[in-house]
Order: sequence, then C-alpha cells, then structure tokens
Amino acid sequence: MRFKKPDEEDIAYFKSVVGDAYVFRDGDVLNVACSDETEDLVFIPEVVIRPCSTDDVSKILSYCNNEQIAITPRGAGTGLSGGALAVHGGVVLDMKKFDKIIKLDKENFQVTVQPGVITQVLQEYVSKEGLFYPPDPASKGSCFIGGNIAENSGGPKAAKYGVVKDYVLNLEMVLPDGKVIWTGANVLKNATGYNLTQLVVGSEGTLGVVTKIVLKLIPAVQYDLSILIPFHSAEDACKAVNTIMLAGIVPSALEFMERDALDIAQKYTSETTIAIPDDVKAHLLVEVDGNDMDALYAEVEKITALLEQYETGEILLADNKAQKDAIWALRRKVGEAVKSNSIYKEEDTVVPRAKLPQLLMCVKRVGGEYGFKSVCYGHAGDGNLHVNIIKGDMDDDKWNNELPVAITKIFKEVVAMGGTISGEHGIGLVQKGYMHLAFDETQLGLMKGIKNLFDPNGIMNPGKIFD
Amino acid sequence: MRFKKPDEEDIAYFKSVVGDAYVFRDGDVLNVACSDETEDLVFIPEVVIRPCSTDDVSKILSYCNNEQIAITPRGAGTGLSGGALAVHGGVVLDMKKFDKIIKLDKENFQVTVQPGVITQVLQEYVSKEGLFYPPDPASKGSCFIGGNIAENSGGPKAAKYGVVKDYVLNLEMVLPDGKVIWTGANVLKNATGYNLTQLVVGSEGTLGVVTKIVLKLIPAVQYDLSILIPFHSAEDACKAVNTIMLAGIVPSALEFMERDALDIAQKYTSETTIAIPDDVKAHLLVEVDGNDMDALYAEVEKITALLEQYETGEILLADNKAQKDAIWALRRKVGEAVKSNSIYKEEDTVVPRAKLPQLLMCVKRVGGEYGFKSVCYGHAGDGNLHVNIIKGDMDDDKWNNELPVAITKIFKEVVAMGGTISGEHGIGLVQKGYMHLAFDETQLGLMKGIKNLFDPNGIMNPGKIFD
Repeated sequence: MRFKKPDEEDIAYFKSVVGDAYVFRDGDVLNVACSDETEDLVFIPEVVIRPCSTDDVSKILSYCNNEQIAITPRGAGTGLSGGALAVHGGVVLDMKKFDKIIKLDKENFQVTVQPGVITQVLQEYVSKEGLFYPPDPASKGSCFIGGNIAENSGGPKAAKYGVVKDYVLNLEMVLPDGKVIWTGANVLKNATGYNLTQLVVGSEGTLGVVTKIVLKLIPAVQYDLSILIPFHSAEDACKAVNTIMLAGIVPSALEFMERDALDIAQKYTSETTIAIPDDVKAHLLVEVDGNDMDALYAEVEKITALLEQYETGEILLADNKAQKDAIWALRRKVGEAVKSNSIYKEEDTVVPRAKLPQLLMCVKRVGGEYGFKSVCYGHAGDGNLHVNIIKGDMDDDKWNNELPVAITKIFKEVVAMGGTISGEHGIGLVQKGYMHLAFDETQLGLMKGIKNLFDPNGIMNPGKIFD
Repeated sequence: MRFKKPDEEDIAYFKSVVGDAYVFRDGDVLNVACSDETEDLVFIPEVVIRPCSTDDVSKILSYCNNEQIAITPRGAGTGLSGGALAVHGGVVLDMKKFDKIIKLDKENFQVTVQPGVITQVLQEYVSKEGLFYPPDPASKGSCFIGGNIAENSGGPKAAKYGVVKDYVLNLEMVLPDGKVIWTGANVLKNATGYNLTQLVVGSEGTLGVVTKIVLKLIPAVQYDLSILIPFHSAEDACKAVNTIMLAGIVPSALEFMERDALDIAQKYTSETTIAIPDDVKAHLLVEVDGNDMDALYAEVEKITALLEQYETGEILLADNKAQKDAIWALRRKVGEAVKSNSIYKEEDTVVPRAKLPQLLMCVKRVGGEYGFKSVCYGHAGDGNLHVNIIKGDMDDDKWNNELPVAITKIFKEVVAMGGTISGEHGIGLVQKGYMHLAFDETQLGLMKGIKNLFDPNGIMNPGKIFD
C-alpha cells in the first residue's frame, strides 16, 4: 500500500477545516505524537491534526480517503501494542479535544461521552451520581475512553465486571469516506441485524474513527477490601487463583505479581511500604467488593482459610483508604517500573484461568532455553498474564532475531492451551507478526475482508493488526 | 437471487453424506420443518437434512454453495421472527442430532456444547456442578442453544445477568464454502483481531452454521425470592421498574405483564391460581437472588417500601418452590396463551428502560388510532416490551395493509427514544421490512457487505434480515 505524503495543498485544506492552531508540523505536539508506551519505538508523522467535532473528522477522513493519505488516530498514547504509531507517516489524528462528557442519563444508567475523556475522570464523574463504570486499565489516570474502546481494554476489575466491550452500547463513528453512522442503539439488548458495535470495539482504529460513545453503567458498589498474599512459589500463587474461584467467590480483582514485579515497583516509587521476606516468590492481590461490610470480612476470612493449604506468608489486609491506595498504587506502577529499568517487550498472553501455572512455567522454561529474563504479572482472575521480557544486556542481534523465535514458542503453547496472544493490549504493530499463530488463512481472510469493506483504500491506521 | 431446486442427483449426494435415514422429503419431519412459532406462516422446503457432524455440515454447505441451493438452518423451531422458515425452499438443515454436551470444564467455568442442546437441559446439567448458565428464554424447555445464539436471545434473567452474547466465548462454524473456523479463543478477554464471535452471535444463520459452542459459566446462586406486584395502572407498573433500579437494586428478573396477559395465561393453563381484583391493570414480577437469604428478604422489604408510592394491590411473596414455579410458569406461558387465542403479530420493541411508560402509551395510542388490540408484556428491567397485536376480527385487508403502517409508526417512536426494533427475537423474515427504520443505507450497506463476505453466493438462510 503506497500512501501520499501530505503536501502544502493538503496542509492548507486541513487548516481550513480545524484552523491553523490545530495543525502541527513540528514542535512538542509532533514530538509527542511520534511514540506511545510501546517499547522504544518512534515513527514521525508528517502532520498532527487536532479535530474538534465529528464534522471535522468527517471532512479530514473523506479528504485523506480521496488523496490516499494515511491516518493514525491517537488517544492519550498509553497503548502497549503500537496502535497509535504512524508507521506509514501521514496524518496523526489527535483526539485530545474530544474531552466532553456529553450526557449522563442517570435514569437509564447510561453515559454519552467523547472519546478523549480520561477513563478515571469518567469514573469519578459517574461515581458522584452513585453509578459505576468498572473498566480500569493500569493507565486509567491518563488513558482515553476512545483508546480503551480501540483496544477492548480490561484492567483488574475485569475479574468480576468484564472488559470494555461489556459496557459499550452504541458508537458514533466516522467511516473513511466521511460518512457518519451509529453502530447500534442505546439499549441493553439488541437483536437487530449484525453487531457492528462489537465489531468496532477492539478494531484498533482500523475501521474508522469513533466520535461518540454510549456506555452502560451499573449501580455503585459501596465497600471493598483488599488483601495482599505472599506465596513461596509463583506456581502456588497461580494455583491459588483457581482455589478461590472454585469456592464460588468472585473477587472484584485477583492480581498476580512475581516477586520481582513488586520489588521493582517499590524501588520505582521510592516508598518501600511493604517488607518482602526473602522466601517470598510471588503475591496475589485480591479485592472483594459489595454493599455489606460484614459479608466482605467474612469473604476475606473464607479466602484466608482456603489459602492455608499453600502455607502462604503473612497476609496483609488493607481495609482503610490509605492502605488500599498504597497497595494498588504499587500494582498499577509495576508496568511503568519494569519498563523504566531496561528496554523490554511486553506480551499480553491470555489462557483459560486454570492454565495459568502451566503458562507461567512455559514462559520460564522458554526464557531458560533462549536466555532471557522475564517479569510476569497480570490479571490472574481472567487468565491474563503480562510477560515483560527484559533486554538487559542481551545483544541486539539476539533481541531482534532470536527473541521472536522464543515468543513464537510461547504463543504456540498459549494457543494450544485454548488461549490467545492478546487479552487487553491489542495486536497493533508489535504483535501482528504473530497473528498467524492465533488464526489461519480463512479467519484472517474474513478479518481482512471486513477491513476492506469498511476501508477499501486502507487509509485507517495502516500497518496494524495485519501484515 | 435465484436458487436451484434440489433434484434427484442432489438428493442422492445428501444421502451419501448423512445416510438415507436422515434425508426427508415428506412425512412428519417435513411437515414440522415448514413452520416455527412465528404467526401462522408456512413455507415448504424441498428436503430436510439432519446432519450428525461438523464434517456432514461442511460437505452439505460446500455442495449447496456450488449448486446454488438455499439452506435454512433450523434449531427447535421456537423462533418468533421466522428465522427457521425456508422462504426460498431448498434445504432445511435440521440440527437436532447435535445434542451433545461435549465437555464441562469445571475448573475454568466453561462448557463446550453442540448447538442442538436444549437450553434447560444445559442449565440443569451445569447446575449439578455448582455452575450457572443464566440466559433463559421463555421457551427454555424446548429451544436449542444454537437458536439462542442465532437470535442473541435473552429472557428474564437478562435484567441482572445479560443475554446470550455475554456468555459466548468461542464458536466452531462452517462457512458456506465448507471451511471450518473457530471464531475466537476460550478466554474471558480477547484483544486479538476483530471480534468474529460477536459478529456471528445474532446473525440468524445468515453467515454460516455454528457446530460447536464454548460458553462461559458463573458460580451458581443459592437462593431466590419472587414477588408479584399488582398495579392499578400499567404506566405505574412501568414507572416502578425504574424506581426499583434507581434505588441501586438489581433484581435477577423484572417482568411486566398487562392484566390481559396474566388473565389469558391463567385461562390457558386452566389453573386459576391467582385471584386478580377488577381494579388491577398490570403486574410486575420481580425476582431477587443471592447467597444470603436474610439479605434477600431485606431486599424484598426495601422494594415493597419503595413501591408504596404507587398504592399497589396486595403483593404476593413466593418463597417456596411450588409458589415460585406456579408464578413463573404463568409468566412463561403468556406468549403461548396469547397466541392460542387468535392470529397475532409479536413486536419485540426495546428502549432505554426509563422510556417504558412512554413506549406503552405509544403502543396503546397507535392501537387506538388504527383499531387494534394489543397485549403487552416483557422484560421491563431491560426496557424490552413484547407487543402482541391480536388479529381477532380485524379483516385481512386491514391486517395486511394498515397494520404495517401502524407498526411503522410505533417503531419510528421506538427509534426516536434511542431504542430499536428487536431486543431478543431477531429480525428474521417478519421484521426485515422495518430494518430501514433502525438503520440507514450506510449501516445496511456495511451489514450486507459482511453478509456478502461470508456468503458470496447468498445460500445461507436467504430472505432473512435484509430485504
């Protein structure tokens, strides 16, 4: 696919649509738009455009579609699969100004938002009205709802409450030819034609640009308790996940962290709040929530009793805000902390939950064979393990040529376990070379056919998902 | 679209694939396959084929695809939108022999089933293992899981637990060219390419034939209580739905029935178990569930207190199995009962929940204008109102020519309220003429493009969803 590099005439058109002030060809805005949170990758677009309205987006898409100019939509740039990287140059469509919460429909537990609203801002807004929007990626303080929809994000609360797709009712979307559609209706159940809404969720900006989002909310939950449980083996921690779930307890979060993950996070935040004995190899962080505090304490006791068989270390109960904030801040910082230490690759493996111990052993075994160190953590309640592979002093040749062979080996085992290669980060740029491990030519052919149907000129986020 | 009528050579081929005993050209099997539960519609296929395996289905689809023979997949024939009607003749693919529960993966709360398993059979099976599959259409005692997936069915429990789409993890599917794919992976979260699984759920057999289904289960819930609440006005009953939800209570079912609905159901089952005073115009049937019986009684008390403002009639509490079975059997029989009385049309309107009173008034107002009687009931917790329009003594001309105008008027108001034309029954044959009210040419163009991508020869369930 060849794309036209925007010329002066094109730039003049973009300025005529959004105004001179929102077309950037150099400076800070361009520098920021060159990268996201994926490894150390940098791609420089010719121009960053900051539209303000659906109409702006429609005009720009339609123009670029006619001129064969590549468009890469960008949210907050917190993505971990390179979805916001302009690998073919052209236009980065910066959605920052789509930051309005348009309407909270309290009566119907629905909210209509623009895609540039920060996830946590939305959560706090609806919380004031007694409502709850559960999906909470680690980057919730900065990521945009639009990016969450593009990647079908999850986060810790997915263990009980599901992922982004479970909360999206309807989307306003601009197609590459500039036409504007709604994908569904503002209803809780819908059997009216094909589910375009769920086709767009997780499509990583390759089908069009989402400009309005109708989300389902649920009643706020009043209380929660968290416990941090140290294990003497990482496999035991993984096994304990299923012990809890099989007892019929559905925690609101069930997070796994290898020892290194917590160590690195504590150093990174420079607040050693938790002393970790030498014989501790992993932690589970378990949160339960509900509207009856006594019932929550009873649930924690039940979990504690269930875990006696694993001879855990001393369990830390966090039942006040300061303690809970401290533990969860550590958990949320793990990713950043690991990445601040070295060049890394993050794999977002997901398997049926009970296969977690097997997945962890596979990662360590392959690491041993190929000589790489990994730090693993993630959403164990969903079987979603983030495998951070650390470059450290590995030479570039090995990093570039041998590591993909090792990752292929891990992914093949993941797929054989009934799992797949991305649980919540998306395929984007960095995983697309592995798509053939998850899907055969027929499945990929259908997906590429859908891409071609929505975007026949291939201008929308080119170079993503598919090779 | 012209289809070939199967000839002797075709029949011989079908017999060579599934055996002589499973190719039917007359007799009971053919007679049954002529209709489903949709109005009084009858379409006679040339042949009914009963395949036993994915391989059988693959061979038949591939053959029919080459020969341009129409295929209509059929589950239990309980559909309400004509999805199983062979409107272009040809082959009815009867999935009755796909009746195996293949594997219960208790550790991962997953079950793999064939599409011909009866919904209630599956529910009881997993329940013995302490697990729960919530979607429960009124026809759960006879409908097939495969049909539920085709229509994205719901049922009363959707109020708290969601609909079929929320439980489907992965599907084995035969494409019209005979190729077999899995649509996803057996995982709780998935950000790996486009969501083919959710595209197939609700696609009404128009994209291919589902041959295996991996469903998510949840831990069983131990207790439930039901209350039947009589109201002196139907609007009050609708309003009360939101009163309950806004108090943060999420009932496991929240059903609305007009007075007539319950009257007719009681007559139909010939057990007048509930005396309904003359001044009662509607009922809500509310179920709460959980693992703490005291908490459930407290919830019922809270609901009762909240509803005092509506000056309801005497509330009937059903807290033993016999009472609960009696009330719920009545609710489940309403549809059948209404339909046994007269020719009817059933509309499956759905709106944002708080708009229910407005929807009900709209139906009655339009009924007044066009001179038809309707019996309304449905899943009020989801804003899903089934509008049964009774033919009674309306003449055929009016029924065929004026009624569609009235239905158009109702649907237009539904769409203006943010709702849509089918919540859980699907579009099938009888609603396809109204699709343009829910979607414009661009949206329909995308849907038709998807259809064409999966099924370029148009052999799969032709004449459904789209005109």
